Formats: sequence, structure tokens, C-alpha cells
Amino acid sequence: MKIVSIGAGNLATNLCVALHKSHHDILQVFSRKSTSAECLACRIGASPVTDMELITTDADIYIVSVTDSALPDVARRLVDHLEAGNQGGALPLIVHTAGSIAMDVIPSARRGVVYPMQTFSKQRLVDFSQIPIFIEANYADDLEMLRLLATSLSSHVQVLSSTDRRYLHLAAVFCSNFTNHCYALADKILSQHNVPFSAMLPLIDEVAAKVHSMPPHEAQTGPARRHDANVMNEHIELLANDKRLQNIYKIMSESIADD
Amino acid sequence: MKIVSIGAGNLATNLCVALHKSHHDILQVFSRKSTSAECLACRIGASPVTDMELITTDADIYIVSVTDSALPDVARRLVDHLEAGNQGGALPLIVHTAGSIAMDVIPSARRGVVYPMQTFSKQRLVDFSQIPIFIEANYADDLEMLRLLATSLSSHVQVLSSTDRRYLHLAAVFCSNFTNHCYALADKILSQHNVPFSAMLPLIDEVAAKVHSMPPHEAQTGPARRHDANVMNEHIELLANDKRLQNIYKIMSESIADD
Repeated sequence: MKIVSIGAGNLATNLCVALHKSHHDILQVFSRKSTSAECLACRIGASPVTDMELITTDADIYIVSVTDSALPDVARRLVDHLEAGNQGGALPLIVHTAGSIAMDVIPSARRGVVYPMQTFSKQRLVDFSQIPIFIEANYADDLEMLRLLATSLSSHVQVLSSTDRRYLHLAAVFCSNFTNHCYALADKILSQHNVPFSAMLPLIDEVAAKVHSMPPHEAQTGPARRHDANVMNEHIELLANDKRLQNIYKIMSESIADD
Repeated sequence: MKIVSIGAGNLATNLCVALHKSHHDILQVFSRKSTSAECLACRIGASPVTDMELITTDADIYIVSVTDSALPDVARRLVDHLEAGNQGGALPLIVHTAGSIAMDVIPSARRGVVYPMQTFSKQRLVDFSQIPIFIEANYADDLEMLRLLATSLSSHVQVLSSTDRRYLHLAAVFCSNFTNHCYALADKILSQHNVPFSAMLPLIDEVAAKVHSMPPHEAQTGPARRHDANVMNEHIELLANDKRLQNIYKIMSESIADD
């Protein structure tokens, strides 16, 4: 398929590289920042564009991967541009890639969503074949088109409504952002007590591996699960000089104990 | 070395199996529950014991792996038993394996700690070679003995004081128990919205893999890190019917935003 990427950030970079590897033709990469547009375009044989007026009207799909806050405005301007170029004809399919934003942020009938649920960095390309991709479209034909596109990248493709996708994104914040922050808080504690963070890696890996074979509720261990008040009170005391960290400890432990 | 295991739980099982594989001679496994003692003893060619009076006085090391709350009493009774058997002679080395408890819970001069930092299940034997083991002993000779024992199991052995070990254990609660609970909370959210928890596994694995190559603070992503108030407020609204979950979301997000 002929594709234009609106955006050249972490998700756009990973998605476009994967699409390129699956032999899709990415015509252009748009970004307001010329270095970002050029850097990604160069990796995938596309043309960099920094002026929205120069975006081609000839693509099959326009994939908008910009920050959530920029998405409404960028989608509106893209639709205006394509309408001006199409002179009243039907617009091509426009999709976004944001987990937490409804499909109808795109003010055009042929709209959809392709949400690859993963955490992305430009510097670290991930293997798309194992990434769950959640798709949605306004029209059945477009949904099939997105299914084709998504299955060319991954074997885990699921249709999901905008409403359910909001909860999926929320769950991903727990599994990803909050777990990583737990690592960061541990790092902060260890740095004051002569232990390198690397000592935690086997534990971190095992906790992640465990939930491949049992539900997280069953995998739960630790003082809160055992209702071991002695250990919990001692930990709370160790955190006496950091009230926020102490509060996180208390509320997480209460939630585990009552689960 | 000739070893007696006091305890036959998750940690004792994993530790004894690893010691057995490294050709240490585990003479006896003590547990109040005869099935637990028999089950572990059978796996490692040891004798099961349910009566503390029957514990041999001939071992080089006694490893006490019982719950934190039982540890003071069990250690006291073990010392009494060995003293009665030794008729005033020097006692053998007694160690415990608890992250959060000081070495001096053992009321005997030849005492120490061997703390393998990992989450253990009886059903799931882990590879000890990559597990960091933290050791401590009252006497230099005993510390060398523990170093020999620990390095026969793992290439990551570090001497750590009881004080620093308490913080290590606290950090492990964040990296292990709290991250697993974040998975459990995500599972709870997803179960109401047509997405299987397995969809989270690639994300969970990537978040764990990422901190092998960059500090967790740098790896942080998500709405709180981006200070994206729209998404955060929407998430808080989605959690309106679960005040505790909403509170966890708020306090974790604040902590990330200020980090």
C-alpha cells in the first residue's frame, strides 16, 4: 500500500520501519521539524516534508502519529488539505495511532485507528511481529484494509472500539509507565545503599516472565500478600524521610492486601 | 559442604535444589509439615524431619528459610537444640535467608545471612547462576565459607550489611511485588473490556528489557512523563467507580511528573 506518515517520532519511526520492511511504499514523512522528517524518510526511502501543503493526495492511507495534544489540530489540517486537493471527491483513508483518543478526532468519513500497543524509542527498534495491534474503522471496507496492513506486520491483530481502547490504554499505563516508575523508585533507594540497580535485573525479568504462565493475581508475593505487618511497618519507617514514597508504599500494600 | 535446611517453602526449595545440583550434601530438611519436608527431601536425597529434636548436630551450615514472622522463634529453638547436643562446644554456622531481617536474630556467635534476591515458587525452579546473592557473617572465616557456598551457585555474590540489606529488600518490593500488582490492576481493568491479559505481555517484556540498557528514569514514557493533563484527567475519570485505583493512578502519576 502507498502510505504517508504524518509524524516522525518514536512510534512513527518504529511503525514506518516495520511497514518498509513489509514492503509497503511510504511515499512521504511529514514533520514540522526538518531533521526528524529527514532522518526517518532517509531510513525508509521516503521524501521528507515539513510543509503540510506539500503532502501528496495520491496515497492509500495517511497515518497520523503525533502527540495526543497535537492530534486534533493536525488531523483537521490534514483533512482540509486533502479536501482542497481532491476537489469534492472521496478522501483517502486517514488513521491515527493513539491509544487514548477516539477515532472521531479525524473529521472525515473514511477514518480509522491502528494502535500498536508497545512502548517505543527511536533508538531501539522493536520486533513488530509480536506486538498486539488494535484496529478500528468507520467503514467495513476500510477495516479490512487496516486488517491487511496490520497482519502484514503482526500476528496479533484485534478489532477494538474507541471506548474499549481507552481502557486498554489505561491498562497499558499500569503495565508500562507505572512498573517502570517502580523500577525508578527502587533505583533511587538502592543508590543510597551501596547496591547497583543491575542487581535488580534478574528479579525484574523473573516477575515479567512469571505472568506468561500464571495470572498476575496468583503470581503475587511479598509482605503485603502475606499480611506481614512487621515487615511493612519496618519498610514504612525506612521511608520516613520521603513522605510521597511512603504513601506509595502504603497505598500499594493496602491494595495488594485487599486483592 | 554438609547442610541442613530448616524450612521447605518456596525459597528453601529453590535454594536446596540449586545446592544439590552444585554437589553440596543436604543431610536433612526440617519442616513442621511432614508433606513439605518429605517432598523437598525426596528431590535432593535428604532425610525429612518434622521434630526439631531430631536435627543432626553434624552439619557445617544450618540454613533457616522460614517466614519472617516465624524466624526469631525457630532460630532460638535451633540454637537451643544445637547447644544441648554440643555440650558447651562451639556451635556450627547458622544462617538465615530473609532480606528484611537483621543477622542478629540468630542468638549464636557463628551466625550469618545468605539472601538470594529473587521471587521464588516451588513449582517454578529458577536458574541460580544469574541470581544476586547477598551475604553477611559475624566472623571473617564464616564469611569466606558463605562466599564459597554462594559462588558455587551464582556469579553475583556481594557482601552487604544488615542495614543496607533492609533497603535492598525494600527496593525489591518495589521492583517485584509492586510491579506485579500493577500487572494485576491492568488485568482487572482489561477483564471488563474485551481484551485478554496476554495482550500486555509484549509490552511488559519490553519495559523489563529496556532497563537492561538504560536507567529506569531515562526509560520513563507515558502521559505523566509528558505532563499530558488531558489524557491523565480522562484516565482518572475512567476510574471514577474505583476510588482506590483512582488514587493509585494519581499518586503514581504525580510521582512520575515530579521525578
